[in-house]
Amino acid sequence: MALPNQVRIVEVGPRDGLQNEKAVSTDAKVALINALSGAGYQTIEAGSFVSPKWVPQMADSGDVMAAIQRRNGVTYTALTPNLKGFELAMAARADEVAVFGAASEAFSQKNINCSIAESLERFAPVIDAAKAQNIPVRGYVSCVLGCPYQGEVPLADVVRVAKTLFDMGCYEISLGDTIGVGTPLAAQRMLAAVAKEVPMEHLALHFHNTYGQALANIAACLPMGVRVLDSAVAGLGGCPYAKGASGNVATEDVLYMLAGMGIETGIDLDAVIQAGHDICQALGTKPRSNVSLARLATRATTSTSE
Amino acid sequence: MALPNQVRIVEVGPRDGLQNEKAVSTDAKVALINALSGAGYQTIEAGSFVSPKWVPQMADSGDVMAAIQRRNGVTYTALTPNLKGFELAMAARADEVAVFGAASEAFSQKNINCSIAESLERFAPVIDAAKAQNIPVRGYVSCVLGCPYQGEVPLADVVRVAKTLFDMGCYEISLGDTIGVGTPLAAQRMLAAVAKEVPMEHLALHFHNTYGQALANIAACLPMGVRVLDSAVAGLGGCPYAKGASGNVATEDVLYMLAGMGIETGIDLDAVIQAGHDICQALGTKPRSNVSLARLATRATTSTSE
Repeated sequence: MALPNQVRIVEVGPRDGLQNEKAVSTDAKVALINALSGAGYQTIEAGSFVSPKWVPQMADSGDVMAAIQRRNGVTYTALTPNLKGFELAMAARADEVAVFGAASEAFSQKNINCSIAESLERFAPVIDAAKAQNIPVRGYVSCVLGCPYQGEVPLADVVRVAKTLFDMGCYEISLGDTIGVGTPLAAQRMLAAVAKEVPMEHLALHFHNTYGQALANIAACLPMGVRVLDSAVAGLGGCPYAKGASGNVATEDVLYMLAGMGIETGIDLDAVIQAGHDICQALGTKPRSNVSLARLATRATTSTSE
Repeated sequence: MALPNQVRIVEVGPRDGLQNEKAVSTDAKVALINALSGAGYQTIEAGSFVSPKWVPQMADSGDVMAAIQRRNGVTYTALTPNLKGFELAMAARADEVAVFGAASEAFSQKNINCSIAESLERFAPVIDAAKAQNIPVRGYVSCVLGCPYQGEVPLADVVRVAKTLFDMGCYEISLGDTIGVGTPLAAQRMLAAVAKEVPMEHLALHFHNTYGQALANIAACLPMGVRVLDSAVAGLGGCPYAKGASGNVATEDVLYMLAGMGIETGIDLDAVIQAGHDICQALGTKPRSNVSLARLATRATTSTSE
C-alpha cells in the first residue's frame, strides 16, 4: 500500500450532522464549532444557507457564524444552494461555500425538486459570484454508491456530475455515499472512475456508516491517492432514509484508524471526543462513534475498579 | 487485490458473544443456534465447558447442545480449557473443540491465572485426547493486537503462541484482537508475521469492533489469503474491559461487506438478521450490527411512509 503521510479532514458535523438531528440551541452549535476549531482542524463546515422551510435546523446559521471565535488557519465553510444563500453566506463571512448536486436523477427530483441538469444550472451563478469574490467553491455529489429511490446509480452519472462541477469551477469534489451502502471494491471502482476525469488531488470522500462499511471503504481508497476525507464528530447525522440508523462516519473513528496507520491529520483525538460528548449531551443522545464509546467506557470501567 | 471467491464464517455469537452478555434462557440459546444452523453456516461455536464459577452464562452448555437440532454439514464446536471440559464436550456430542491461549503474559495471568507456558501445558492432554477420538481442535490466540493490561504485545509472542498451538496439533489458529484496538496496517503486519510460521490456510481472524476498526482490518487482510473469519450475530459480546463498548464484529456487517465484494459465504443474511433480532429481544438489547439496524430501520421507515 502506498499510503499518504497526511490527510485533511473536513469536519461536517455542525452542518451535515446537525441538520439531520433534532434542533439544538445556537449556543450549543457555537460551542461545538469553537471546540472543534481548537482541536486542530483546517476545515469546518459551519452552516447552511438554505430555506429554513426545508431545513429548520440550520435557520440560525447566520447567528452561529457571527458568534463563533474565528481561529487563524481554519476555513469555515457553508452550504449555499443558490445566489440568495451565497449572499447570506458572504454576509456571515464564510471563507468557502459549497453546492450540493446528486448523481441520481431520482434523488435530485425528490431532494431538491429538479433534475440534475437544472440543479447544475442553478449552481452556475453561485460559482460565478464566488469566483468574483475569490471565494473557493466545493462541490458535493451525493448518491455516488447508491440511491434510496432508484437503487443502483450508474458510474457514468457519478463521473459526469463530478466532472461538470469541477469544470464549472469547484476546486474540490466531495463524493458522497449518502446512504452508506457502498463496500470496499465498489468504493475503489467509483473513485477510480471519477479520478480518470477529475484529478485525484481535487477529490474528497464523504462516506456514511449506515451499513458499517465507511472505515473499510476509506481504508480501501487511501492507497489510491485520495487525501481529503469528510467526517462528522460523534457520527452526528443519522440517516433520513432509515430512521435510527447511523449517518456520517464518525471523525473519532477515522482519526483513530489514520493514527494507527501513521497518517497525520493535525487533529487532537481527545479534544474531538470531548466536543462530541458535549454536543451529544445537548442533543440528549449518545455518540455514534465506537472510539468515543470505548474511551468513555474504559474511563468508567477503570475508575470503577480503582 | 487478489480476493478469495469464498470465505468460511465461524459464528461465535452463541459462545464468545453470549458469555459476555447477561444470562438468557437455555431455550433462547437453542432457538438461536437452530436459527443460525438454518441460515447456512458451516461452523457454529455452540457452548463452553468451563467452570460455571468463572463463566456462569455458559453453565447450561450441555443442556443447550443436547436440545439443538443437529443439521447435516454444520460443525458444532465447544470451548474446552481442560480435560474435564473436553469430557463434558464429548458427552454433549461436540463435533470440534477449542482451546484458548493468550499472546499476552499479563492477560494470561489475569484471565486464566497462569503463565502462557503453563496454559499451553494444560492444553496438551486436551489435544491428545481429542486426537485419540479424531476430534479437530481449534486454537485461539487472544490479544494479538494489544492487551488491556500490558498494552503492546510483541509480534514475536503472537507468532510463538500461534506456532506452538499449531505444532501441538490445532488444525486452525484463530487470531483474536480481543479488545479491538488494531488498525489495518497493524492487522496486516500481524497476519504476515504469523503466516511465516503457520500456513495461511490454517489461520482465522477473530476481530472485535470495540474501536470500529474490525471491518477495515478484515478488508485489509483478505487480499493476503486468509479464508476464515470469526464473527458474532448482532455483534453479541460487548467488551469486559470497557463496559458499554462494542464486542465481536457483527456477522451481518461482515456478510454485507463480503457480498458487496463478490465473496461467497453460503449464509443467508436475512436469516442472520432475524436470528440476531430475536436473541436481542431475549436479551432486552438492540443488535450491535449497523446492517441489522439499517435494515430494520429501512423497513420501519418504509412502512411508516406508505
